[in-house]
Amino acid sequence: MSQINRQWLLTARPNGMIGPEHFELVETPMPEPDLDNGEVLIKVLMLGFDPAMRGWVEDLPSYLPPVELGTPMRGSGVGQGIASHNDAMPVGTLVQGLTNWQEYCIGGGSSVMPMQPLPPGTAPGTALAAFGTTAFTAYFGLLDVGQPKQGETVLVSGAAGATGSFVAQIARLQGCKVVGIAGGPEKCQWLKDACHVDHAIDYKSEDIGARLSEVCPEGIDVFFDNVGGATLETAIGHMREFGRIALCGGISGYNDTEPAAGPSNLMDLVKFRIRMQGFIVIDYMDRFPEAAAQLAQWIEAGELVWREDIQEGFENVPATLQRLFKGQNQGKQMLKLADPDS
Amino acid sequence: MSQINRQWLLTARPNGMIGPEHFELVETPMPEPDLDNGEVLIKVLMLGFDPAMRGWVEDLPSYLPPVELGTPMRGSGVGQGIASHNDAMPVGTLVQGLTNWQEYCIGGGSSVMPMQPLPPGTAPGTALAAFGTTAFTAYFGLLDVGQPKQGETVLVSGAAGATGSFVAQIARLQGCKVVGIAGGPEKCQWLKDACHVDHAIDYKSEDIGARLSEVCPEGIDVFFDNVGGATLETAIGHMREFGRIALCGGISGYNDTEPAAGPSNLMDLVKFRIRMQGFIVIDYMDRFPEAAAQLAQWIEAGELVWREDIQEGFENVPATLQRLFKGQNQGKQMLKLADPDS
Repeated sequence: MSQINRQWLLTARPNGMIGPEHFELVETPMPEPDLDNGEVLIKVLMLGFDPAMRGWVEDLPSYLPPVELGTPMRGSGVGQGIASHNDAMPVGTLVQGLTNWQEYCIGGGSSVMPMQPLPPGTAPGTALAAFGTTAFTAYFGLLDVGQPKQGETVLVSGAAGATGSFVAQIARLQGCKVVGIAGGPEKCQWLKDACHVDHAIDYKSEDIGARLSEVCPEGIDVFFDNVGGATLETAIGHMREFGRIALCGGISGYNDTEPAAGPSNLMDLVKFRIRMQGFIVIDYMDRFPEAAAQLAQWIEAGELVWREDIQEGFENVPATLQRLFKGQNQGKQMLKLADPDS
Repeated sequence: MSQINRQWLLTARPNGMIGPEHFELVETPMPEPDLDNGEVLIKVLMLGFDPAMRGWVEDLPSYLPPVELGTPMRGSGVGQGIASHNDAMPVGTLVQGLTNWQEYCIGGGSSVMPMQPLPPGTAPGTALAAFGTTAFTAYFGLLDVGQPKQGETVLVSGAAGATGSFVAQIARLQGCKVVGIAGGPEKCQWLKDACHVDHAIDYKSEDIGARLSEVCPEGIDVFFDNVGGATLETAIGHMREFGRIALCGGISGYNDTEPAAGPSNLMDLVKFRIRMQGFIVIDYMDRFPEAAAQLAQWIEAGELVWREDIQEGFENVPATLQRLFKGQNQGKQMLKLADPDS
């Protein structure tokens, strides 16, 4: 076993687009699991990438402390125990959690998000795409915050993304009419063919407002927003009375150097009694098993599909994060470091 | 009895500040109450003015249809029955409801907001200030939408206004720390002396953000917003995790010729899991008796105060509305047409 642990450290805070120049690849000694704390040495097999990571590098108060300069970038991943002082995670166990950007990490101790063993037979990519925070974000954000009812109209932005495509499909499974916004004909076609949305709007070539008037003249009951900015403003203008906006993120603005102005039509929230609510999936941690069980059931029934965009090479980690902000990812963005030992 | 009914008709839709030039004073025949419909002829004694009226003249979809050009301006008021085909409202009954801008109106039939008899012994000004939609807006917006808990911090904008001052006091009665934003030293002093807020911020002479950092470093749990615009953006930046923003109105922007940009920090709603919710008091109509009973109890106990800003002269009706948007009113803006017949 190598005695070296390669890590990507955050070395500069981006002002604008995040990229490889904000990170440095270093070689550090392999970490040692603490016997007394019941720790496990984990070999990282697959890293997962999420737009929320852009917020983690900002030196601003948020739901998690900022990643400190000179420390490994925070990130989720799947790994496998290779040395263990923890009976619940023997060597060979596949786990999921905040591995951070490194080849080896320590699990089993205390953490914001404790490492969770994968359900037996679950591949690393499946875990990150369908049984991790990405899918749970869709599940709780749509069902708990959006509260769609059968027959209502649900709009999703970033609909071809890892979270958005789950939102679209879960909304369909609630008996809703579903409209997805995505960039480019390929993503829109996939939304229609594979996710069975009622309508897909290509924001790169279509006028979102005009298309919304056309495909949901009755208005929108629930808007699940991953994008923010002009998309949010347009959607607000098409909400029905007593509509709900689940604010998941605002990828359109994450790499702005100056904060963009917000929607000019917030008074529509008053006129039409609209609730707009931000949420973060970690608040639902005690209900993750509920979500995992329901998702497993839908997947078993063939009702949920997803795409895995798997890059390779530890040296490509920062560039892979950037793919999210350039809209290059097709489905859940991941990077494979190694295959599991069976 | 005069056979003439003077009315103020809406004759032009304002683009910018609303004023007398958008209305025309006309003399029309006295309306006749319909015997079959159980109608009552009502002499209007007092008109009430509310910032929401600015929205009613916009030719845009909203919670009520726009006031049509050439028709009397919509508005609430208190009147007295002077001819009645309705046993529930005999001659002499004082009632409250949408009288509109005229000297006489018809009540007792069907309406969006049916005329309500005043509780015995209630003066017209008291009815409009403390037992009408103004006070009910404060009651339901704060308690139902804002959901303050004992010990939490509540911020109110437009705090010296008719609704805002009730919000501030009801929040205090819930055991909350209360901060009010108002314009000018006189209003701020009244908030502290009479409404017993913990802190008053004078937006005309103070930096709201700096003062919020000073007087509520712990952040804001509930923001009741009557103002919108820059005040809303600043308040969002001071919200605590799981805070609630009850969007009541946005008087700062009602007379803009172009919609102003919205808050640039909406992603704080995600980071801090904030709920922002618009509401309209008419959705709570079936619970008005509950609010009236609770308000009466507080008033009886000396726990609620208010100010009545009573103008006079039917010819001054449009100018009186404008006082709200110039920040000239001190408390509930009203205009007296006549005293009740006892």
